[in-house]
Amino acid sequence: MFIELLLTHQEISAKALRGKICVIIDTLRATSTIITAFGRGCREIIPVVSCQEAFRLKKRKAYRHYLLGGEVEGRTPDSFDLGNSPLEYLKKDLQGKGVIFRTTNGTRALEKAEAAETVIICALLNAGAVVHWLAKQNKEMVICCAGTKGAFSLEDFLTAGSLIVNLMKKTDKFTPTDLAFTAGCFYAYIQEKTGKKNAIAALLGKTANGQRLLQAGLEKDILYCSQANILPLVPFYKDGSLRLTSCC
Amino acid sequence: MFIELLLTHQEISAKALRGKICVIIDTLRATSTIITAFGRGCREIIPVVSCQEAFRLKKRKAYRHYLLGGEVEGRTPDSFDLGNSPLEYLKKDLQGKGVIFRTTNGTRALEKAEAAETVIICALLNAGAVVHWLAKQNKEMVICCAGTKGAFSLEDFLTAGSLIVNLMKKTDKFTPTDLAFTAGCFYAYIQEKTGKKNAIAALLGKTANGQRLLQAGLEKDILYCSQANILPLVPFYKDGSLRLTSCC
Repeated sequence: MFIELLLTHQEISAKALRGKICVIIDTLRATSTIITAFGRGCREIIPVVSCQEAFRLKKRKAYRHYLLGGEVEGRTPDSFDLGNSPLEYLKKDLQGKGVIFRTTNGTRALEKAEAAETVIICALLNAGAVVHWLAKQNKEMVICCAGTKGAFSLEDFLTAGSLIVNLMKKTDKFTPTDLAFTAGCFYAYIQEKTGKKNAIAALLGKTANGQRLLQAGLEKDILYCSQANILPLVPFYKDGSLRLTSCC
Repeated sequence: MFIELLLTHQEISAKALRGKICVIIDTLRATSTIITAFGRGCREIIPVVSCQEAFRLKKRKAYRHYLLGGEVEGRTPDSFDLGNSPLEYLKKDLQGKGVIFRTTNGTRALEKAEAAETVIICALLNAGAVVHWLAKQNKEMVICCAGTKGAFSLEDFLTAGSLIVNLMKKTDKFTPTDLAFTAGCFYAYIQEKTGKKNAIAALLGKTANGQRLLQAGLEKDILYCSQANILPLVPFYKDGSLRLTSCC
């Protein structure tokens, strides 16, 4: 069974995903934020593609108590409860709560991934739990980096590489494609070279996305998102919702 | 000055190349073959996109003595003098000769790269000479992997990585983009892990392109193309021709 890798969500096609497991990665910051929200007890996250859609959904009776979260071009929209910083979610008690979540890249990637049999959410924060879950599956898988505005994201490639390296250590039933193999080598190289604390954060800070966050004074977001395996949970996306347990 | 990296020739756009140096890589096998032809004394290579174009050009008086080389879907076309195997060119004395060269990916990449100020040809075979030449330049550069049918080629990524790593050792005037940095790390990792003779060839043999060549009985082509820095020459592409010296 193959492990494929896509570098941007623009590369997702329904045909390529059918019958497969799709792992969505948007390390800085959408998937890190989603995972953090679930870590704080959140019950459901509903990704939407526009603020208008978020407001319309919240008007409906069933969603009246949902929080509005997410960003537009990196900023928290007016009258939203939360932005796209995982640290905002980390500070909040979200036990049993729902969030309507608007984010540029992550949401679009999820929308396009729906053709897959199972869609899961990954960042460095939960990479260990994702590997644990993937190792038990018997399906082809496609790891999809969200990328940034159609371009390569180093931080997503690194997260993908960590999945590939650690999955190959656990089982030999999966074969990485050439690109997936390359991501694994990149991760292994960075692991070997960066033994020091915060070295991954320093690397992420140098990336295009990391630079944007640093300029916005969000260094702590980078530090937080660069931590591997601190949240042992796997969010699933199904029927328009993100939840902790698969509905299947 | 930035060093950019494109993973397939489909990503080339005139706008992105204007005023820059463009390095075209198609390690298995078009650029390896072109470099080998120049190493055997070839004076000029004219890349064309179809056999019909090759035949029409050869009919003209000035090109009557040119050899026809290249491939269609991996095979040597009828009435061509040479295919796309560098070993065919290696065996031939091409001193002062011209070649009209038809190849699927490499030619298309060159056609699209013409918007750049300077276009040069690279494979592992001449990577050292290319680094030597690039280090003396003061322009932004775009390294363009030809890829295969619009998809990632590991062997081109590795060759690109070798340029990036060795260029950064020589000078600090260039800054790799995130993707270019990743290619450099990949090359460095492979270099460290594969000390043994023919280890690069073994890796290339496992790639999608390498597998196709092995199935066609062309193992020796892979072995040959995996040799680094054996041909100290840099072919330039200008005005529809490949030559060893820049016309500028």
